[in-house]
Amino acid sequence: MESNINIGVIGYGYWGPNLVRNFAEIPGAKVTMVSDFKPELLAKVQARYPTIQVTTDCQDIFNSASIDVVTIATPVSTHFDLALRALQAGKHVFVEKPITPTAEQALRLVEEAEKRNLVLMVDHTFAYTGAVRKMRELVDTNQIGDLYYYDSVRVNLGLFQHDVSVIWDLAVHDLSIMDYVLPAQPYAVSATGVSHVPGEPENLAYLTLFFPGNLIAHINVNWLAPVKVRRTLIGGSQKMIVYDDLEPSEKVKVYDRGITVNGHNSPERLYQMLIGYRAGDMWSPHLDVTEALRTEGLHLIDCVKNGDRPITDGTAGLRVVKILEAATQSIKQHGQMVELDLAEVTV
Amino acid sequence: MESNINIGVIGYGYWGPNLVRNFAEIPGAKVTMVSDFKPELLAKVQARYPTIQVTTDCQDIFNSASIDVVTIATPVSTHFDLALRALQAGKHVFVEKPITPTAEQALRLVEEAEKRNLVLMVDHTFAYTGAVRKMRELVDTNQIGDLYYYDSVRVNLGLFQHDVSVIWDLAVHDLSIMDYVLPAQPYAVSATGVSHVPGEPENLAYLTLFFPGNLIAHINVNWLAPVKVRRTLIGGSQKMIVYDDLEPSEKVKVYDRGITVNGHNSPERLYQMLIGYRAGDMWSPHLDVTEALRTEGLHLIDCVKNGDRPITDGTAGLRVVKILEAATQSIKQHGQMVELDLAEVTV
Amino acid sequence: MESNINIGVIGYGYWGPNLVRNFAEIPGAKVTMVSDFKPELLAKVQARYPTIQVTTDCQDIFNSASIDVVTIATPVSTHFDLALRALQAGKHVFVEKPITPTAEQALRLVEEAEKRNLVLMVDHTFAYTGAVRKMRELVDTNQIGDLYYYDSVRVNLGLFQHDVSVIWDLAVHDLSIMDYVLPAQPYAVSATGVSHVPGEPENLAYLTLFFPGNLIAHINVNWLAPVKVRRTLIGGSQKMIVYDDLEPSEKVKVYDRGITVNGHNSPERLYQMLIGYRAGDMWSPHLDVTEALRTEGLHLIDCVKNGDRPITDGTAGLRVVKILEAATQSIKQHGQMVELDLAEVTV
Amino acid sequence: MESNINIGVIGYGYWGPNLVRNFAEIPGAKVTMVSDFKPELLAKVQARYPTIQVTTDCQDIFNSASIDVVTIATPVSTHFDLALRALQAGKHVFVEKPITPTAEQALRLVEEAEKRNLVLMVDHTFAYTGAVRKMRELVDTNQIGDLYYYDSVRVNLGLFQHDVSVIWDLAVHDLSIMDYVLPAQPYAVSATGVSHVPGEPENLAYLTLFFPGNLIAHINVNWLAPVKVRRTLIGGSQKMIVYDDLEPSEKVKVYDRGITVNGHNSPERLYQMLIGYRAGDMWSPHLDVTEALRTEGLHLIDCVKNGDRPITDGTAGLRVVKILEAATQSIKQHGQMVELDLAEVTV
Repeated sequence: MESNINIGVIGYGYWGPNLVRNFAEIPGAKVTMVSDFKPELLAKVQARYPTIQVTTDCQDIFNSASIDVVTIATPVSTHFDLALRALQAGKHVFVEKPITPTAEQALRLVEEAEKRNLVLMVDHTFAYTGAVRKMRELVDTNQIGDLYYYDSVRVNLGLFQHDVSVIWDLAVHDLSIMDYVLPAQPYAVSATGVSHVPGEPENLAYLTLFFPGNLIAHINVNWLAPVKVRRTLIGGSQKMIVYDDLEPSEKVKVYDRGITVNGHNSPERLYQMLIGYRAGDMWSPHLDVTEALRTEGLHLIDCVKNGDRPITDGTAGLRVVKILEAATQSIKQHGQMVELDLAEVTV
Repeated sequence: MESNINIGVIGYGYWGPNLVRNFAEIPGAKVTMVSDFKPELLAKVQARYPTIQVTTDCQDIFNSASIDVVTIATPVSTHFDLALRALQAGKHVFVEKPITPTAEQALRLVEEAEKRNLVLMVDHTFAYTGAVRKMRELVDTNQIGDLYYYDSVRVNLGLFQHDVSVIWDLAVHDLSIMDYVLPAQPYAVSATGVSHVPGEPENLAYLTLFFPGNLIAHINVNWLAPVKVRRTLIGGSQKMIVYDDLEPSEKVKVYDRGITVNGHNSPERLYQMLIGYRAGDMWSPHLDVTEALRTEGLHLIDCVKNGDRPITDGTAGLRVVKILEAATQSIKQHGQMVELDLAEVTV
Repeated sequence: MESNINIGVIGYGYWGPNLVRNFAEIPGAKVTMVSDFKPELLAKVQARYPTIQVTTDCQDIFNSASIDVVTIATPVSTHFDLALRALQAGKHVFVEKPITPTAEQALRLVEEAEKRNLVLMVDHTFAYTGAVRKMRELVDTNQIGDLYYYDSVRVNLGLFQHDVSVIWDLAVHDLSIMDYVLPAQPYAVSATGVSHVPGEPENLAYLTLFFPGNLIAHINVNWLAPVKVRRTLIGGSQKMIVYDDLEPSEKVKVYDRGITVNGHNSPERLYQMLIGYRAGDMWSPHLDVTEALRTEGLHLIDCVKNGDRPITDGTAGLRVVKILEAATQSIKQHGQMVELDLAEVTV
Repeated sequence: MESNINIGVIGYGYWGPNLVRNFAEIPGAKVTMVSDFKPELLAKVQARYPTIQVTTDCQDIFNSASIDVVTIATPVSTHFDLALRALQAGKHVFVEKPITPTAEQALRLVEEAEKRNLVLMVDHTFAYTGAVRKMRELVDTNQIGDLYYYDSVRVNLGLFQHDVSVIWDLAVHDLSIMDYVLPAQPYAVSATGVSHVPGEPENLAYLTLFFPGNLIAHINVNWLAPVKVRRTLIGGSQKMIVYDDLEPSEKVKVYDRGITVNGHNSPERLYQMLIGYRAGDMWSPHLDVTEALRTEGLHLIDCVKNGDRPITDGTAGLRVVKILEAATQSIKQHGQMVELDLAEVTV
């Protein structure tokens, strides 16, 4: 009989309870310890899961010989230190996004995990949803054709964060989706944004990402919108996708629409005659409705057991943070393009 | 009895028939001549309006002593030449948007009209819709509070144009709406965009406009979207507006939503406690449903009769073209900010 | 060279102008005379179509030897008399829906047309839309499977009519769609309704139509609804359709959803285990966007030229009126079922 | 210090866990025992709530001297027997809807509770939502004017039930909402419906309810719809409501729309001139977002402590069951009207 993978969870605030609940239902996984510096949160753990050990000192988790995986669900400013200590204690790590506040730190974690042959997985949750996996499948099987653009609006009246700007809170979702769905990496970013609360980071921002060829991506994030919007368009030469995460059932719609460019300019015919429009059927594929966290948890356990590299590994986390850093810099420069070097961070 | 204002229309292609139909129903206005270089289009005029004179030579319109107003509904590249000739012939001018392909030309027309004391009106149609007029009223009466942002998405699978990029075709609508609704002028623009058809201008673009204070505007235009979207958010400290032009009846929704920033940071309380959220009622005002072109035509006739300056006069057209020029330049520089000087063009 | 089919139009009120405009653009058709008892409406005809003769006496149309088809776009109370006179004058007839106020009159017209070998076509416009034709195609090619139900909501804040109730104004659309799309005829109707204006006919009504087997249809019509709804569900054993006529582009959506009933009850397993749910893809077919009136006009001309029976012939009109009569009777009896005999009226 | 109200819960299937979770968070309430005949469900209770006693024999609950309230969340066929035993054991009763399978049984429970001066409350959950409470407030404060109609569509691809038809499963929601919101009681019902699975009760039905005056109600329920719809229109002489329970935030919209009926018919003017249309603003009030079950639980505890009559008491449950019985009978008679006598059941 195979033994369980034992998991220690650091942080039982907003996301921690979801992680504990989810790991509790995954075959082969077992949460054995939870740490948080607030005793009242630990009391909730004990009430709900009497068999889980609790502690206010996360060092107890690092010290526990039986724990295989450390899950980190704390504020982003603490990720680097906690993840590094976990890796150095020989634990596999599953860390909330963004992986770290700086690319330098993310790279350090990637290297540490490589050196020790440990799994370093980032919780890019959307990559495990049925909708995003379907979009990747559509791109991978070349049903979209040449990719033209990725255009996302992710706005709502949201909880203002004080340590990070809206791009670290919301755009990180799109960047992790793009990292998973698109087959190419951007080479530069231009971003703009503004803060409406004195002394606070930007609560509204716009990112343009430049890719080789004529692929472009744009992300619109806003904490001060009166309505919630989660809508992404992906345009290609063969098909176009509308992904609306707020739709209860038809989240992904695939449109057989586009243009056809025929031949070259000729003196006899006006050039505009040569661009045609194609408007065919729309199709909304049935999506796997498994909760993303469950799919992700199963994948984590598989990777730990088999030594596989996770889909959303440390290098994926590093690429996302590199873009966030560059976008933050571009915002300061009112949209001036900042170059990216992501090729090196793809293992 | 007051005599009619006689109108000559140059161009009977896409928009011309709407103008002729509309002026035909406006009391005090009379279309007396239409010119187009395609005889088959003039045949349509004759079939539908047997009393209107037609000509393939627009000079006939300039020469006609009885014509008071020349309406120009031709490709943008011809606007300057035709408008200048009309003004020089002593005619009032009503010209399609954008007023001219360059700011220099627009300024020249403004000066010519000023010198001759003639009306120069640009067809910024949206400024005459019930929805946009209601938004201006909401801003003017200070119901929105401090303005935070204007954020518009205007995308569809659209007719590719060959002489101008998507911003001259679609963003021009938002720029003219903003010019009418917002009480301030932007001081700089950062824009990005791309073309997906070799040799053609950009078919997708993103503009960020910087205003004094912390007001920002963003425009997302795209000729290659699988679905049609016409949605604008206007955020303020008191209220927020969602303007969806595709809604059949409730185009404008006003949300009593926002944040309240209370007091200053204090050592005793975490700062995040001081930002509160306000979520109150939503209200959708009943809108005037008069066709915009009719409201606009009545305004034109009024201005001509009374020597008034139109709401969308030549300087409004000039401001819009200045922004389009700067945005075009910024796109070439991958988002680098280009400064604007619009103060001078406000008479 | 084949000669034109000459058309006389009686009635130039609400719908007449659409008919004249449409026939004017149909090859092989020519509107030669329009009658209306209001001279001001005839003046509009003359202004727009100088070559069309006008008259306040419809007898001029019946007397004109060159007229082949009489189109009747007058209040329903006049349909029978005008259509009968037209047929007796040897003219083909195209008449607005509902064909007549009573089934007895409709039958009389059908018989007269049969006797004289003339085309009698009812303007069941929806049967000529791309959406309804696609639904018929889906049913005909057995993609829906066994038909379970037709369920339509057709409500708005509508123009109250004084001579007929809401079912003669709105439900007639659904009845004509069903007559075209469904392969079976209802055998009985139960209807309820109410008037909210003293002395006026019902402004809100509900119809249930019973079909052989377990097919049922329901129609909800209302002139006093705050919002406009035009939504029909068609359920079957293989697929289900949502037809929303207010959707700008995706009017017809086909869902691969349903239940699967496996085997019989057994003592070992609870019966409920044997009903499964099927939730597959959704598909929205591209629809022909030709204006329905044009498709219908072309069909009329074809039928007249070739002596074919129209898709929406007099017997279709008769079946619809039989149902309207029975529903009116059922409403008076608070929902008591009234039997229909439609088999006889299918030629 | 006031002592807790102790609650015993019978049934831990679909709804029971929600009740236990909810009561656990209500101040002054304490769930002390849960019974279910499936041991595996009781194991779940024990794992999550170690301090709650569990039993497979509900008699233990009736026998427990410390239990004040018995909550019944079992199949409807068992409600009468369990509720009667609970009342006879001197317990207050909170029972799922519908209260019983027959009106006779419901009346028996009402009488038993009256006699013993015990609270008998039915879980008509919707009456405790912010949306429905707002609608009642709008009706109560006469903002809607004279009530014209209540029209609800409640359809989805739903779990087929085998003991009851779709009206006992879905229409019961509308009947309980109407019982709470409308100030009048219906005097008769006409209903139609059909089953698409041999041997099973109706999976699709339509109910019309007749009220004194010209108020009418209609309910459309369907377990075999491809899409989920939860939309109710309430029409009145002053305002009209659209209540869409699937809207994430704007569930209730109030339209200032309607007709104005001016004066009487006169020979000089056509009558239709006298009906005008009113199209004013729309307004969506901010709603209380407290979970309905919590509001309901607080109300139950209040009623038990203070001996108050619940908003959704046994007579409300009885009225709803009377209508369900009559509708079931009307369906068998293809829509024939069945009279109701609800006046007597209002205490």
